[in-house]
Amino acid sequence: MSQPQTAISPRRDEDFPEWYQQVVRAADLAENSDVRGCMVIKPWGYGLWENMQRILDGMFKATGHKNAYFPLFIPLSYLAKEAQHVEGFAKECAVVTHHRLEADGRGGLRPAPSAELTEPLVVRPTSETIIGATYAKWVQSYRDLPILINQWANVVRWEMRPRLFLRTAEFLWQEGHTAHETEREAREETTRMLEVYEKFAREHLALPVYTGEKSEAERFPGAVQTLCIEAMVQDRKAIQAGTSHFLGQNFAKASGIQFLSRTNTQEFAWTTSWGVSTRLIGTVIMAHGDDDGVVLPPRIAPAHIVLLPVTPKPETREAVLAAVEALAAELRARTYAGEPIRVEIDQRDIGGGTKNWEWIKKGVPIRVELGPRDLEKGSVAVARRDRAPKDKAFLATAEFVEGAAEMLQSIQDGLLARATALRDAHTVVLDSKEAFYAFFTAKNSERPEIHGGFALAHWNGSREVEEQIKADLKVTIRCIPFQGADEPGTCIFTGQPSRQRVLFAKSY
Amino acid sequence: MSQPQTAISPRRDEDFPEWYQQVVRAADLAENSDVRGCMVIKPWGYGLWENMQRILDGMFKATGHKNAYFPLFIPLSYLAKEAQHVEGFAKECAVVTHHRLEADGRGGLRPAPSAELTEPLVVRPTSETIIGATYAKWVQSYRDLPILINQWANVVRWEMRPRLFLRTAEFLWQEGHTAHETEREAREETTRMLEVYEKFAREHLALPVYTGEKSEAERFPGAVQTLCIEAMVQDRKAIQAGTSHFLGQNFAKASGIQFLSRTNTQEFAWTTSWGVSTRLIGTVIMAHGDDDGVVLPPRIAPAHIVLLPVTPKPETREAVLAAVEALAAELRARTYAGEPIRVEIDQRDIGGGTKNWEWIKKGVPIRVELGPRDLEKGSVAVARRDRAPKDKAFLATAEFVEGAAEMLQSIQDGLLARATALRDAHTVVLDSKEAFYAFFTAKNSERPEIHGGFALAHWNGSREVEEQIKADLKVTIRCIPFQGADEPGTCIFTGQPSRQRVLFAKSY
Repeated sequence: MSQPQTAISPRRDEDFPEWYQQVVRAADLAENSDVRGCMVIKPWGYGLWENMQRILDGMFKATGHKNAYFPLFIPLSYLAKEAQHVEGFAKECAVVTHHRLEADGRGGLRPAPSAELTEPLVVRPTSETIIGATYAKWVQSYRDLPILINQWANVVRWEMRPRLFLRTAEFLWQEGHTAHETEREAREETTRMLEVYEKFAREHLALPVYTGEKSEAERFPGAVQTLCIEAMVQDRKAIQAGTSHFLGQNFAKASGIQFLSRTNTQEFAWTTSWGVSTRLIGTVIMAHGDDDGVVLPPRIAPAHIVLLPVTPKPETREAVLAAVEALAAELRARTYAGEPIRVEIDQRDIGGGTKNWEWIKKGVPIRVELGPRDLEKGSVAVARRDRAPKDKAFLATAEFVEGAAEMLQSIQDGLLARATALRDAHTVVLDSKEAFYAFFTAKNSERPEIHGGFALAHWNGSREVEEQIKADLKVTIRCIPFQGADEPGTCIFTGQPSRQRVLFAKSY
Repeated sequence: MSQPQTAISPRRDEDFPEWYQQVVRAADLAENSDVRGCMVIKPWGYGLWENMQRILDGMFKATGHKNAYFPLFIPLSYLAKEAQHVEGFAKECAVVTHHRLEADGRGGLRPAPSAELTEPLVVRPTSETIIGATYAKWVQSYRDLPILINQWANVVRWEMRPRLFLRTAEFLWQEGHTAHETEREAREETTRMLEVYEKFAREHLALPVYTGEKSEAERFPGAVQTLCIEAMVQDRKAIQAGTSHFLGQNFAKASGIQFLSRTNTQEFAWTTSWGVSTRLIGTVIMAHGDDDGVVLPPRIAPAHIVLLPVTPKPETREAVLAAVEALAAELRARTYAGEPIRVEIDQRDIGGGTKNWEWIKKGVPIRVELGPRDLEKGSVAVARRDRAPKDKAFLATAEFVEGAAEMLQSIQDGLLARATALRDAHTVVLDSKEAFYAFFTAKNSERPEIHGGFALAHWNGSREVEEQIKADLKVTIRCIPFQGADEPGTCIFTGQPSRQRVLFAKSY
């Protein structure tokens, strides 16, 4: 049977990685730049990030955090301060060695040999070390604690195989860095911010995520404990969508964050760090997109509604455009999820079909057509991005305006329900090594990308077992989940005791 | 006669540069980091920047711009594309030469020799070249124009003599980059964005600014025309607070931004760029601060009002704190300038005097004390930052709440009036070289910092004259003003004809 034509080629079930690249391109979200591994985030993609930022920023502030800004550059010696940290990051940094250029005598430029830095600077891959050095100066007494700060910034981790949003040399993120008087407070903070991420993913990105702790092998370099949220995307792989680290006193000792305690003793502070990045954009695309392009959760969509005036005849054009402007004004005066409804009007002089498909590919939640006949009838043609492209409802204009916010929330809820159904359909409980290996082996060699899913299985806690599974299947422990997997059992790989099931998957 | 004690030492009239450093420190706005020339922007300082960002961002969007993000790194060869541009910027860049670190065998790290980049990358000092290369790919036809994009980003220009906010190696800014079909549109855009900056400075920063064009010597490298806003600060020097460049077709030619025109010919686009930076924070401090610290215009203050509970006795403490919380809630439910009133409660367990002075130094517009006796009387003690520290008004609580927004606007208006009066008092029209040299020469050798001001004088347009004046007096042409100086005359330096008076000043 032949498949119906889709706007994106290949389809997801044909070639998921290529589908992803095509979707990003068709939606005008981002593109590769001439600088290897660095992307250009285009306005539609950046609009997504701005909305994520605004919502997260509000959540951070509601939990008592303030924003600040720390240097882009980190002295080389700082990275070497925390032994495990340097192991984890040192290999993939952009290194600044000169502070001036000069003419090279052949019409070009070169780094001026006379301007070589005494100590090279690393472009921050993450800021624990430079922020730690700063906090060490700020903290004298327990009265100076806690410090609850977040930074919105760009970071650089050199990547040999970049992929837009998912893995790029430069990316945008937020990094929270907090310092506390007691271990308990720092652990509470680590958990609190993971909960913020889980709630943000669920309510705004329409992503149901597993929360849990990373195994030692997958832990952030230098952390005592790394908590994470893990989302499933449509090729059934996992994406680590956010992490929250309890750093113990490791970075405090490395940076000298010390304070005079309530009992007059010198103590090291307890620190945390937590972050999410533009990778969330890739996650949303892979989780919700379909064969016609991106499907955006309304909460983060740069535009909630696009208005498409239909102007077949010059004599009715002005009336239609005026009606569209009036409709936009009415919608913008209303709110969805506490913010004014975001409306775009597309009155470009291109074919209606092309225009309509552009917005489908961009994933705008609601498309509204308004032409001369609609104007006569006082109605609009409304299409929802979560339904088939040709599925239009003809609604009285006032009725549409009245129900627009509700329709947006219905789309939002539908996306969460669909993503949850997908995840649940492909999350299995496995009790034998054979079943485990079978689950993670592609059955159909023509469509090798889509198979497997999330497997909850018992594991004895051994790093060797983890490494073997990774070598055999490219499967890793995504997390030791917090809920629903906490009965003890027997490791399916070794027969040794296991405290609880852990979550295995292939991942990005 | 002895001066009254002030919170900041030295006073402005004793040592203005040192006063500035002390004010920044006392207000907890920013500090130098261990990385030479790079600053840490602390939460109170970053809060200022966030407010500036939010307001400007709204103004950019209202004028049709969208945000996007371009790479941090620029290939060396891109900088060499525009000949004048490279002259202007090449000398002071951070250059990335390696993409990996390795152990140096002595417990430290070094750039891995095997990971030297074929082409070094420059950390963007500004993004015309990398954005131009991107626009060249986006633009095929006149239908693709205009492109109206802004970027919020960090940039790096190596500085040998850094000063917090005013001149730092890394700083935060926005850079608008637009491409147009016609010269007229590009010139209109250049002017429109200068007008946005002027309005922002006046309405939000309470800064009256001169608008005008830079002389050729002060022009942005590669621009055809640089427009600017120039503010006067309290040592009577000028600060260039924002620039808007008409780039002609220079960068379009260098980057290959070409399009098929309406008449089917290949044309180069006309481009503009425009930016303001964290330097605005330094400008606000120097323009409005007094001998007790920072004085913040309410529109951009991270907190509009701080509530200071006075709790002398344990038995009334809870009632006072509850009343303060209730007052905060009432205030936050009201708006000032279209945004909820921003209220902080400071219930730290430190002395009331210390606490009060901290907020004076931070420049919060309104301080409110509420203690047990105020509670009985249903009143609050209200102090405005634009009045003397001890000048308190005792107002009925309801009356204060009712009038809070108006009081904030009255402070805002007062700051603008004061800054305008200062500027006008020290702006002179000069008609002889002798008067000019006298105006810009310090009369009192004990207070050499504060003298001069803005001088409007005739100039023949010669670069040599400009250079002589700069060499003699450190005075430069700040701009060729748009208004109020346009009658022709005679150059006071050469006796040659002059088209109009230009604005001279010493500057930051």
